[in-house]
Amino acid sequence: MKIAFLGAGHMGVPMALNVLRAGHQLKAFNRTPEKLTALRQEGATIVNAPLEAVEGVDIAITMLANDEAVRETILGRSPSGVAAIDALPRDGIHMCCSTISVVLSRELAREHTARGQGYVGAPVVGRPEAAAERQLWVMAGGPRNQIERCRPVMEAIGRGISVVGTEPWQAHLTKIATNFMIASMLEAMGEAFALVRKSGMDSRALLEVLNATFASPMYSNYGQKIVNQQFDPAGFRVTLGLKDVHLALEAAQDAAAPLPLASLLRDHFLTAIAHGRETADWSAVSEVAAWNAGLDMPVSAR
Amino acid sequence: MKIAFLGAGHMGVPMALNVLRAGHQLKAFNRTPEKLTALRQEGATIVNAPLEAVEGVDIAITMLANDEAVRETILGRSPSGVAAIDALPRDGIHMCCSTISVVLSRELAREHTARGQGYVGAPVVGRPEAAAERQLWVMAGGPRNQIERCRPVMEAIGRGISVVGTEPWQAHLTKIATNFMIASMLEAMGEAFALVRKSGMDSRALLEVLNATFASPMYSNYGQKIVNQQFDPAGFRVTLGLKDVHLALEAAQDAAAPLPLASLLRDHFLTAIAHGRETADWSAVSEVAAWNAGLDMPVSAR
Amino acid sequence: MKIAFLGAGHMGVPMALNVLRAGHQLKAFNRTPEKLTALRQEGATIVNAPLEAVEGVDIAITMLANDEAVRETILGRSPSGVAAIDALPRDGIHMCCSTISVVLSRELAREHTARGQGYVGAPVVGRPEAAAERQLWVMAGGPRNQIERCRPVMEAIGRGISVVGTEPWQAHLTKIATNFMIASMLEAMGEAFALVRKSGMDSRALLEVLNATFASPMYSNYGQKIVNQQFDPAGFRVTLGLKDVHLALEAAQDAAAPLPLASLLRDHFLTAIAHGRETADWSAVSEVAAWNAGLDMPVSAR
Amino acid sequence: MKIAFLGAGHMGVPMALNVLRAGHQLKAFNRTPEKLTALRQEGATIVNAPLEAVEGVDIAITMLANDEAVRETILGRSPSGVAAIDALPRDGIHMCCSTISVVLSRELAREHTARGQGYVGAPVVGRPEAAAERQLWVMAGGPRNQIERCRPVMEAIGRGISVVGTEPWQAHLTKIATNFMIASMLEAMGEAFALVRKSGMDSRALLEVLNATFASPMYSNYGQKIVNQQFDPAGFRVTLGLKDVHLALEAAQDAAAPLPLASLLRDHFLTAIAHGRETADWSAVSEVAAWNAGLDMPVSAR
Repeated sequence: MKIAFLGAGHMGVPMALNVLRAGHQLKAFNRTPEKLTALRQEGATIVNAPLEAVEGVDIAITMLANDEAVRETILGRSPSGVAAIDALPRDGIHMCCSTISVVLSRELAREHTARGQGYVGAPVVGRPEAAAERQLWVMAGGPRNQIERCRPVMEAIGRGISVVGTEPWQAHLTKIATNFMIASMLEAMGEAFALVRKSGMDSRALLEVLNATFASPMYSNYGQKIVNQQFDPAGFRVTLGLKDVHLALEAAQDAAAPLPLASLLRDHFLTAIAHGRETADWSAVSEVAAWNAGLDMPVSAR
Repeated sequence: MKIAFLGAGHMGVPMALNVLRAGHQLKAFNRTPEKLTALRQEGATIVNAPLEAVEGVDIAITMLANDEAVRETILGRSPSGVAAIDALPRDGIHMCCSTISVVLSRELAREHTARGQGYVGAPVVGRPEAAAERQLWVMAGGPRNQIERCRPVMEAIGRGISVVGTEPWQAHLTKIATNFMIASMLEAMGEAFALVRKSGMDSRALLEVLNATFASPMYSNYGQKIVNQQFDPAGFRVTLGLKDVHLALEAAQDAAAPLPLASLLRDHFLTAIAHGRETADWSAVSEVAAWNAGLDMPVSAR
Repeated sequence: MKIAFLGAGHMGVPMALNVLRAGHQLKAFNRTPEKLTALRQEGATIVNAPLEAVEGVDIAITMLANDEAVRETILGRSPSGVAAIDALPRDGIHMCCSTISVVLSRELAREHTARGQGYVGAPVVGRPEAAAERQLWVMAGGPRNQIERCRPVMEAIGRGISVVGTEPWQAHLTKIATNFMIASMLEAMGEAFALVRKSGMDSRALLEVLNATFASPMYSNYGQKIVNQQFDPAGFRVTLGLKDVHLALEAAQDAAAPLPLASLLRDHFLTAIAHGRETADWSAVSEVAAWNAGLDMPVSAR
Repeated sequence: MKIAFLGAGHMGVPMALNVLRAGHQLKAFNRTPEKLTALRQEGATIVNAPLEAVEGVDIAITMLANDEAVRETILGRSPSGVAAIDALPRDGIHMCCSTISVVLSRELAREHTARGQGYVGAPVVGRPEAAAERQLWVMAGGPRNQIERCRPVMEAIGRGISVVGTEPWQAHLTKIATNFMIASMLEAMGEAFALVRKSGMDSRALLEVLNATFASPMYSNYGQKIVNQQFDPAGFRVTLGLKDVHLALEAAQDAAAPLPLASLLRDHFLTAIAHGRETADWSAVSEVAAWNAGLDMPVSAR
């Protein structure tokens, strides 16, 4: 298939490489084109504008940082007054892997439908290493036939697919809820480790027991980071963590479903940012519990 | 070895059976002796008082519901004015599997040491089925040589042992922190499922993605309960969940380590209790998020 | 002076009447013109569009519900393509009494400055009865000379003025913070009254003591509502309470200053809305604490 | 009347002086007798034990720091094996001005009733200066006739009395709820001032508006402390603030009435303590919001 890939961050590059290696034709765009070098070397065509990327393709994949980036890339007008969405062929599908808001996902669905195009929500779970190893998990939302058309691409980037519903926003909401679950685990770990450390114990003993209890790579990987206090370099930044919690709170406000734990996370991400941790890995949110217990000193206070 | 087993609840009976089957001599006591039938049938000696149980044994195991029960059983005086602790032989070890407070654990350590006895904290993770299948995980705290003397018994009841420190309270604190982690997961699930349901989605789709993301039996088992809203019969009651969160908050207060997520859990367990859910499984704490979203009706309001 | 008054809600009408009675010439606009009857009867000129209202005036007062209404009224283009802001005379002042976001306040300041116009933030504290009795308190932000030019109008509507800074957004932020303080009092009362009621006491006894302790009309008035559970009709709706808490959280996010109490308020306003209390007085947020204690039944469950 | 006064802290001394000046005979006891000098000079008899103090009196007033002190003073046995409660005459009344738990208040009621003695809950609102100026507010709980017998003493120490119920614990619960309300105000102020300061404003402007809005000495006095960041010397310590919040949470747990705002307060008092603020005025809880916004540095980090 002819594929456009828009967005070449930590996640986008390995995902696009896997699409390429699965034998698809790829046109790639990124705002900072230097990040596309690896893709060019493996045969992708590098283009200078989103509009150019999506012309003539079967599927246009977006893997961008946030609502603003997706909105600008897909709906933003070029100097000549045309938006990328208008250049995507009728029957072309926008497969949106970005973690975006329910509101934007619904808006994109309307816009694509109005143009006779398809739109599939397909966010992924996994960090950059998982993307490189084709180990992402894809959650897909949209009309069944459109999902089926995208399936080969999904299989090229991930180890499995959950079809979560017939509407694209359902995939985005599922992603938002999943990231909220991970962030909640980070907060819980932050507090639990602060408690045992402040009480005078080695936190490795607790981690061993948590690993036996949960038997989850998610717990062992993040637990290791927190025990070692290794939050740099970031796999996923504090600012992105805050963004995703914000998406959960927005969705919750629209649905009138209070999320007190998401509120707590928001406050702790803000505290982390107020102390200069914007670029640390989001698991650094666990530091806030340690600071509040008087254990460590925020970087900003050292 | 000669073993005393004090406490025959959902967890105690299968644990004691496994000790018996490992070839040890067992004297068992329980306040309501009917629960000891299975143990008698497999060869345990049933006694009428804690004091009688601990006389002459190598190890006295307690598996009781809370601080009050342990305090009464071990330190409480019989009509003749003698406490069980005074009947345990010098060099006998109290292996305390109950989830008790750090404060009581420290007090017991002092009392046993003063009598030349050993004291090992050895709480376990796992539900009654895991106890039956010898699949518990034991966290052990105490002097190394005492832990080694208890090891055959620990191996008889569990699939693995984490030695968490040289002081018994460290094992109890680790257990408290672990249960706090599980309860945090329950709260996070409650909120996440309330969000997707209130937004108009099937919560099974989210559970599938969580299973792919966390790959943890803990998530899949409890997630199943929450999705199916099957909270009865309880494996572990709401009231015990509140008790354990309370132990975490107490330890946190003593250590001056704030635990906002534990505070949130406490509030939600209280709400569950205020609506008549005392005897439901503690995963019913997830119902509070659904009520607050206006999704279901509390039992008390139906 | 020649004054335009845009917005004739519960607060706007009595405020505009007081401006009129102070001897100023008034042109009034409201989306639903029926609400302007009283103003017309006292001599105001009723106009059909914001643009018409602001033409030729010295001061254009806005008293509108939220950001969207202010944005549409002042910056929105008429069918002929002109915005009201373009019709306000050079040297005319926009005196913005609405509770709007810091972001919009900053944007309006830029837009007005670019047109050689003045812009003063002048939100007010007080409920409709206070507005009728000229008992509002005005907090004013903006260049000193502009505030001085507006002072006669401020004196016409209120009992006092606090000059809070030289930038209009400072007045709006002060208003947001003040409403947050009032909402916090409502939440605290909700919890305190739920506690004493659930414990079996009459809540009037507590109210008497709170009145002796705080000696504040704010406490006695709202305390009375909560004790009597009289939340209808609303002086200020639950939905507006949520809006204002949201403004606080937005400002907090921009400033990286976590507000856990505002987060709690947001969650409780959402719970109130999830149970059908959108149109109740915002003091109905206190009902949530009572529901959570199992005391009353949400309307939606009755 | 013959009065015993037990407890001579910041509050007790001025209260006892006022009782003395109202013409009553006073026997006073304090663990550290140096604090009784002023009382001796004005004619009080100083005694060496609680037991001696209460012998032969009409009313025994306790004004002690917490449950432990009241329990020890009234129920604790002297070396000769007698407790003060046993020395109080039949028909003598224990007027308990201390802020104690509902549980202890109920226990004392039972104990006194069993001895044919009276027991009245009579905690007071006000800081030491108010005590000196006879400006305390007394909340009284207990049988009407007993309250009436105590009324002259209550009038000697305060400016007014609220009779809150016929059971002593109701007075103590009302006091707990009132202190919770004050602490909630402190938290709200801490957050509001942190927000405006972090946004770049002078917090005095907000205080002026809060004073206009609430018109409450409580707001102006504590607001002044917070704006000036003057938390030493303490009128009421952080540790006592935590104690009172703890009493609220205990009462809430017994009643199954969740108090999320009290939970938040508890966490912030603990954070203050974790950073060395035990002895600061409890309004220093407001510093936590400033720290979390990255505004000031905790003392411990300077």
